[in-house]
Amino acid sequence: MYEITPIGRVESPLLERGMAPRQGDEGAPDAWLAFEPRVRDGLQDVRAGQELLVLTWLDRATREVLTVRPRGEGDRPLTGVFSTRSPDRPNPIGLHRVRVLEVDGLRVKVGDLEALDGTPIVDVKPVLGQVNER
Amino acid sequence: MYEITPIGRVESPLLERGMAPRQGDEGAPDAWLAFEPRVRDGLQDVRAGQELLVLTWLDRATREVLTVRPRGEGDRPLTGVFSTRSPDRPNPIGLHRVRVLEVDGLRVKVGDLEALDGTPIVDVKPVLGQVNER
Repeated sequence: MYEITPIGRVESPLLERGMAPRQGDEGAPDAWLAFEPRVRDGLQDVRAGQELLVLTWLDRATREVLTVRPRGEGDRPLTGVFSTRSPDRPNPIGLHRVRVLEVDGLRVKVGDLEALDGTPIVDVKPVLGQVNER
Repeated sequence: MYEITPIGRVESPLLERGMAPRQGDEGAPDAWLAFEPRVRDGLQDVRAGQELLVLTWLDRATREVLTVRPRGEGDRPLTGVFSTRSPDRPNPIGLHRVRVLEVDGLRVKVGDLEALDGTPIVDVKPVLGQVNER
């Protein structure tokens, strides 16, 4: 067992699960990532135009679920959650590839983020092949 | 604060951090993902040949670090960790894109995994555009 501590929160017009689109490219809204002051130094190289991977903790997900029926596919068999992007899974970590639109101190505006308002942010990584890697 | 519970462990010939290559494509070894019996149903659609994202908890990382000097770049300035893939970061979640080589019940063999032996596995997701999405 490990403890994960949010480094910020999502600010989004998506207020509840029914409002979320199926995938970012189906039209998720722009959102702000509001980071905690204590992680300021970690953000110092984030710039508008970059693509980032935002990892969230999907705090409204159900953790007891191991199989799901993909949405809109009522006649499909149940699928193991590790072969889906369902938020419902034992450790509900969300993974979102986004483009940075604007940076304002501890607030970072990103495009097309499929995450509900208030969702805790737990990590941010560069897309590989871009920015610094190690 | 949230609690993250491992769903399995990495079995790898990489025994300590100095042995890890910088990126998977620089020649990380094949490894086995050994899952816990309680998540068996979640794995039922994992097949050889698929590409997966494996999320790990980098339990030997330092969580107090916000800036790092990219390895092998001694003259470069310190970089904010959220613009690097350094394991040292506030929530040390590792993200590894791998190909499934073999599935043997709760054990899944994958290629080119840059993760130390014993590293906890916390989630597995399909690469987007492949397998089922939702």
